[in-house]
Amino acid sequence: MATQSLVDIRTFSPKFQHLYATLKDFVENDCMPAEKVFEAQLGQGENRWKVVPPIMEELKTKARSLGLWNLFLTKEYPEGAGLSNLEYALMAEVMGRSLHIASEACNCSAPDTGNMEVFAKYGTPAQKEKWLKPLLDGKIRSAFAMTEKKVASSDATNIETSIQRVGNEYVINGLKWWISGAGDPRCAVYLVMGKSDPKNKEKHRQQSLIIVPADTPGITVVRPMTVFGYDDAPEGHCEILFKDVRVPVENMVLGEGRGFEVIQGRLGPGRIHHCMRCIGVAERALDLLLARVTDPSRRTFGKLLAEHGTVVADIAKSRMDIDQARFLVLNAAKRIDEVKAKGAMKEIGMAKAVVPTMLLTVLDRAMQAHGAGGVSQDFILARSYAQARTLRYADGPDEVHIAQIGKVELRRAAEVTKSLEKQRERSYALITGKAKL
Amino acid sequence: MATQSLVDIRTFSPKFQHLYATLKDFVENDCMPAEKVFEAQLGQGENRWKVVPPIMEELKTKARSLGLWNLFLTKEYPEGAGLSNLEYALMAEVMGRSLHIASEACNCSAPDTGNMEVFAKYGTPAQKEKWLKPLLDGKIRSAFAMTEKKVASSDATNIETSIQRVGNEYVINGLKWWISGAGDPRCAVYLVMGKSDPKNKEKHRQQSLIIVPADTPGITVVRPMTVFGYDDAPEGHCEILFKDVRVPVENMVLGEGRGFEVIQGRLGPGRIHHCMRCIGVAERALDLLLARVTDPSRRTFGKLLAEHGTVVADIAKSRMDIDQARFLVLNAAKRIDEVKAKGAMKEIGMAKAVVPTMLLTVLDRAMQAHGAGGVSQDFILARSYAQARTLRYADGPDEVHIAQIGKVELRRAAEVTKSLEKQRERSYALITGKAKL
Amino acid sequence: MATQSLVDIRTFSPKFQHLYATLKDFVENDCMPAEKVFEAQLGQGENRWKVVPPIMEELKTKARSLGLWNLFLTKEYPEGAGLSNLEYALMAEVMGRSLHIASEACNCSAPDTGNMEVFAKYGTPAQKEKWLKPLLDGKIRSAFAMTEKKVASSDATNIETSIQRVGNEYVINGLKWWISGAGDPRCAVYLVMGKSDPKNKEKHRQQSLIIVPADTPGITVVRPMTVFGYDDAPEGHCEILFKDVRVPVENMVLGEGRGFEVIQGRLGPGRIHHCMRCIGVAERALDLLLARVTDPSRRTFGKLLAEHGTVVADIAKSRMDIDQARFLVLNAAKRIDEVKAKGAMKEIGMAKAVVPTMLLTVLDRAMQAHGAGGVSQDFILARSYAQARTLRYADGPDEVHIAQIGKVELRRAAEVTKSLEKQRERSYALITGKAKL
Amino acid sequence: MATQSLVDIRTFSPKFQHLYATLKDFVENDCMPAEKVFEAQLGQGENRWKVVPPIMEELKTKARSLGLWNLFLTKEYPEGAGLSNLEYALMAEVMGRSLHIASEACNCSAPDTGNMEVFAKYGTPAQKEKWLKPLLDGKIRSAFAMTEKKVASSDATNIETSIQRVGNEYVINGLKWWISGAGDPRCAVYLVMGKSDPKNKEKHRQQSLIIVPADTPGITVVRPMTVFGYDDAPEGHCEILFKDVRVPVENMVLGEGRGFEVIQGRLGPGRIHHCMRCIGVAERALDLLLARVTDPSRRTFGKLLAEHGTVVADIAKSRMDIDQARFLVLNAAKRIDEVKAKGAMKEIGMAKAVVPTMLLTVLDRAMQAHGAGGVSQDFILARSYAQARTLRYADGPDEVHIAQIGKVELRRAAEVTKSLEKQRERSYALITGKAKL
Repeated sequence: MATQSLVDIRTFSPKFQHLYATLKDFVENDCMPAEKVFEAQLGQGENRWKVVPPIMEELKTKARSLGLWNLFLTKEYPEGAGLSNLEYALMAEVMGRSLHIASEACNCSAPDTGNMEVFAKYGTPAQKEKWLKPLLDGKIRSAFAMTEKKVASSDATNIETSIQRVGNEYVINGLKWWISGAGDPRCAVYLVMGKSDPKNKEKHRQQSLIIVPADTPGITVVRPMTVFGYDDAPEGHCEILFKDVRVPVENMVLGEGRGFEVIQGRLGPGRIHHCMRCIGVAERALDLLLARVTDPSRRTFGKLLAEHGTVVADIAKSRMDIDQARFLVLNAAKRIDEVKAKGAMKEIGMAKAVVPTMLLTVLDRAMQAHGAGGVSQDFILARSYAQARTLRYADGPDEVHIAQIGKVELRRAAEVTKSLEKQRERSYALITGKAKL
Repeated sequence: MATQSLVDIRTFSPKFQHLYATLKDFVENDCMPAEKVFEAQLGQGENRWKVVPPIMEELKTKARSLGLWNLFLTKEYPEGAGLSNLEYALMAEVMGRSLHIASEACNCSAPDTGNMEVFAKYGTPAQKEKWLKPLLDGKIRSAFAMTEKKVASSDATNIETSIQRVGNEYVINGLKWWISGAGDPRCAVYLVMGKSDPKNKEKHRQQSLIIVPADTPGITVVRPMTVFGYDDAPEGHCEILFKDVRVPVENMVLGEGRGFEVIQGRLGPGRIHHCMRCIGVAERALDLLLARVTDPSRRTFGKLLAEHGTVVADIAKSRMDIDQARFLVLNAAKRIDEVKAKGAMKEIGMAKAVVPTMLLTVLDRAMQAHGAGGVSQDFILARSYAQARTLRYADGPDEVHIAQIGKVELRRAAEVTKSLEKQRERSYALITGKAKL
Repeated sequence: MATQSLVDIRTFSPKFQHLYATLKDFVENDCMPAEKVFEAQLGQGENRWKVVPPIMEELKTKARSLGLWNLFLTKEYPEGAGLSNLEYALMAEVMGRSLHIASEACNCSAPDTGNMEVFAKYGTPAQKEKWLKPLLDGKIRSAFAMTEKKVASSDATNIETSIQRVGNEYVINGLKWWISGAGDPRCAVYLVMGKSDPKNKEKHRQQSLIIVPADTPGITVVRPMTVFGYDDAPEGHCEILFKDVRVPVENMVLGEGRGFEVIQGRLGPGRIHHCMRCIGVAERALDLLLARVTDPSRRTFGKLLAEHGTVVADIAKSRMDIDQARFLVLNAAKRIDEVKAKGAMKEIGMAKAVVPTMLLTVLDRAMQAHGAGGVSQDFILARSYAQARTLRYADGPDEVHIAQIGKVELRRAAEVTKSLEKQRERSYALITGKAKL
Repeated sequence: MATQSLVDIRTFSPKFQHLYATLKDFVENDCMPAEKVFEAQLGQGENRWKVVPPIMEELKTKARSLGLWNLFLTKEYPEGAGLSNLEYALMAEVMGRSLHIASEACNCSAPDTGNMEVFAKYGTPAQKEKWLKPLLDGKIRSAFAMTEKKVASSDATNIETSIQRVGNEYVINGLKWWISGAGDPRCAVYLVMGKSDPKNKEKHRQQSLIIVPADTPGITVVRPMTVFGYDDAPEGHCEILFKDVRVPVENMVLGEGRGFEVIQGRLGPGRIHHCMRCIGVAERALDLLLARVTDPSRRTFGKLLAEHGTVVADIAKSRMDIDQARFLVLNAAKRIDEVKAKGAMKEIGMAKAVVPTMLLTVLDRAMQAHGAGGVSQDFILARSYAQARTLRYADGPDEVHIAQIGKVELRRAAEVTKSLEKQRERSYALITGKAKL
């Protein structure tokens, strides 16, 4: 992070400063060089879904030994690293610099993070023992099965998957898609959102969230979805059919009809984690842009790219865009520390509405300077673009966040109107001499 | 095309109107349904580069029988369909609606089109017989090998591949990449740009363009490049190593040192072809957007997407963006008809600088309304986005076109300044009574 | 106008070409130099509203003698110059180059133009004799009193001014503002919109339009409004109180309850006239920009402004923005020729939604290059900016036009959806072998 | 200010919190109501430049009594209020809410602030006694005469005004314009920038800054310039001719040839003061927008404006734009506290490049919701727009700031390139097994 006076790392605890420096070093010297290694080790054809590049597990071992582990579980979780949200925001930015490697290496990658939060917050001791422990240890991975193909599931009340109690079991039927991580051979468990009480008059009490082991009979992984051509193997984003899938009643999370409550609790910090990492991606894109436009082998018409005024302007705008967006994210993180995610919904929403679009803009500028290379597998730019693009609708599309921010602002309207009225009256009184300063 | 008063198809020749209607029908009823067929027939793994989906050859047969063949070769070419550039622009928009299928089905797809133009314009009778004929017949395909990995080849004077005469042969050495079409098993010939006279003081006389059969020894296809995550098999965009590749001197195009001249002649109409098709892609994206936001199964928060004001605004803006951009393209096409591509450089440049960005904007709006589906293989949107993105640097990056347009405008500055001066003088004379109206 | 292949003046009638050339000459050599004369002759203080700079009447005399008179009254009006709307669009662009002078000089300035159209279309012979004739002769001026201070009168059904019949008279009461032209000493007549039947169940039958001579007792011009800081004297934009203003029943236009019908008829071409002129303003702004950035006395840091890449890009973008917008306007004008204003509502709306914003952008770039001079009285830029800004809400705010264009597009949704469905079915049939090409 | 976690006023000293609350109250209850009073008391015609509305002096008296005086003079100046730059930034935002009144009322308005800084920093005891004291007391006002009509004075080396020593006097000749405040009857002194040594090889040693009493013979105020249509009386922005104006040698500031040094020192904080106030203006514009769109008398087509999705989006975007920009400003202010203005040039430049454009955007949205009212004298929007527009070129045009920020970023390029190279090497070593994690 460029020096920022408002959030100056030199004012943080020595312990945090040390951890931050350790992470920077790890990301720079291990994760970033590991990216091409990971690609080289990835399987071909069907093996893309069977092979986890060994470098990843090596990185995890190293990260854990460095204390760079489960950083996302902030202070309120005894299982975590004890960071504040603001501190984690700063760490997540650093991890974002090696987006496809560092988060997983530090056991801080979605959807596991959100799922671990769910288990930690709402799990029974047995659920925690069975699922949270191996997740915290990085032994297994998990998926969150919410989005459905046939409905607009950005409005979660539209979800149609049924979770029906039959005796001591719940029977699950439904078609989900975009279930991230479900392609991974290490993915052992799904958290499945469905309707257990579709006729409940309270629309937000119809849903339940249930734990489904990945090897339960009745589950078919139909196909991996692609994001701009990327399948993101081995994790993938899968279309999954649940047909008469049965799990014991103990697998219910928190209780029937409380699915909405759980996902609300899950979403807040998760949204901001993406934003935090995005800042790091943007900084890396800007770095790549700087390197490219000063590359002496890339002269055109007798000039370095960096000698063209429009290129310099692109660089400056990127710096300004990134710095502004970072403040929004850090502010939201600090606000979560102060008043929890629920109280910080506006600040979180603002970060969520601003950051992905900012990142896309910065990536696009960097791509343009790279020409054909920029859209290819030789740089992280196009792949990051594809991933960032999904953040404009994932966890709520931009439009929804923007509408909510607008509504929150509009709550001030009555008070503002009253104060304008008062000013008008006083103004009139001053002009007519009926009042004095 | 929505009815446009300035370019009204009803005022064109009956023959053209018939051909236009035939093409619309073919694209709508054959090409668009064939898209998923093509994908289903595409090979997996290594076979992606060995199998050409049979549906394509079937479409070609049908297109040819309908007279929808080699439409891009305008009036001045005896081998072509006799259209004007304006007429072809209208046809290309229709083909653009099924971007990945229709152009090839009608033997109108890049890079073959540009290569055929080169052979038709500059080829010797023997070269025409050997390469142009099978290309015109759609029997073989071809590639254009210009871009190089190590240099900024958007400035073609940077090219480093050497073409050296040794006896009755030319020996070619160099590393090219982004050679589109070179992955296709039908690709039989490359047109290779290189330096035959690197020390010539005239920088634009150093280059030659030479014909290289694809099976010449010394050629290695190193790897396919990806555009975002797409490999665009079976055509592909390949990195190719030329190592001591030898061809007979008869393979030189036009003459040693005339490479620049040839690519200049090749580029003009080619640039505009892309733009023409882009308009069609944009119209299809808008169609998809309309269908999506009125899909009754996609209600959120009790409303169709089409009932949200911001969505309606997105639709309106897309309509306005498309219509404006189309006029630029049609105007450039008509100008080519009037004064040839060279005289229409400003109009071509304006279309090239405006249209791809417009298309990206329209596609992005459509994607956003589709949520996760929009970035996936289930719709053409993300793939079209990836392809359109390449047009912002291919055949000259936006920045170069914009700089050139600016320079052309600036040529008017002296005259404008003189006229302002004259007005100031007359104004002064009128105020002081020294002149009358 | 820069040469445009799609609308090539050389293909127009010789008579029009002559008129066009005459107007260009008049605007360039008389109107533009007259601008500073007009300002110099304008009164100070109260006299701003009493003195009409004599240069204007001189220009009118000259314009009339040149046949440049009432050009806006197109073919269907026997009183007019017999131009088509497309031809007038081209002429209006030229007049727009000297926005504050040329239109009035040619008796083609709002609001007189719209008012003359009303009289010509809907006036009784007596009304025509009394008001249309002197307006056509440029002897008097007029105003259109619709906008009201207390309501959102962009929705005309909100209007509250009352027009009540009492015996053989109508009595008018209401508070209007932004009545353009009402400050002019030559303004002899208002067309006043109000409610004659406020309880009519048909919301669009409540309104009437009535003729009110400017000297009728009961009228108070409360104050001139300013646009940014401009009062636009002597015409002005006035707040006007109508208190028990009485006019004979013969002053009703078309009939009681038909006010909406009249203003609908009035608006169509009027909207496009503004757009036409805006193109001319934008061209002039670009001219000023070109002159400024090549002014050798304006070097900064050793370079002409024109040598900075971002400035060149601004010029290029302006050229592209203007040309695209012009096509929308010309297309709308041609469409009016073909199917009348009512049938061309979408095309008119698109021009209206695009052009003023385009002009503001171009003006802003030109201002920026002029530094402080750009916002001052020394150039037309800031004043044009202020005026253009009003066009983003006048005659319907951008938002309303955009919403309507979106709605018109959405009418295609059902058909598009059907056609997509058909394609999906055929695709499936082709894949499964149940259909053939 | 909306609650901002990163800069939380509750963590500031109680003394500051009290002062902040006092200022808020004063601005809200005295300054804002006084705006219309000021306008009403302003003279007409020539008197606009002769009459200072009495309300202003009353406000000054009250402000001083409340301790709201000379707040801009931060800690390092013994004469000031002892605030840090960060604290002043927060105060300036509040003053910005009543842009045309509050700053002057608190003796914190440009150009006096910068001039007082000059006197405080560089003045001799005699200069301080004569000019700084009455300025600090708000008894007189001052102007800064730098910009020249004939040259691009945004590059200060272009300045042509001559300051020539003749005996014990300096003789000044030159034509300045846009001298803000020079129209005010209270304006007693100018600081004039000119060339005392035009042939000095060091381009930045040619200039001197000299004190010129406003009543010195040889000074002619040629005319007031207008900004859009505003003359900003009584202060004004004047064109001033200096013809053989003579002042004693004691009037030189700091020393001959040190003019550049002085203006460099003057500019840093001044630039940021404008930005600080702009945030306040933007907040007020957003308030006005909120009030307008919820005004029940402004329904269109059956809906409040606030019920239109695009309006809600405008509100949300304004909130996000403002908050992001505010962080940049506060960050720059804090950075000045830490490393002085010179060390904070990048942060200051970023604020300067971002904030005025942000404010224009927010004002434009608010204007659009106000329709015609928005551009008129009835709201502060249009006048604020005009003023904000000048900040895009004043104290360095956007382009210059952007180019400088880009250049500062580019300084990192070499290091970035080295680090990328290192990563590539390590990546290769990891793949080939030559290195381990």
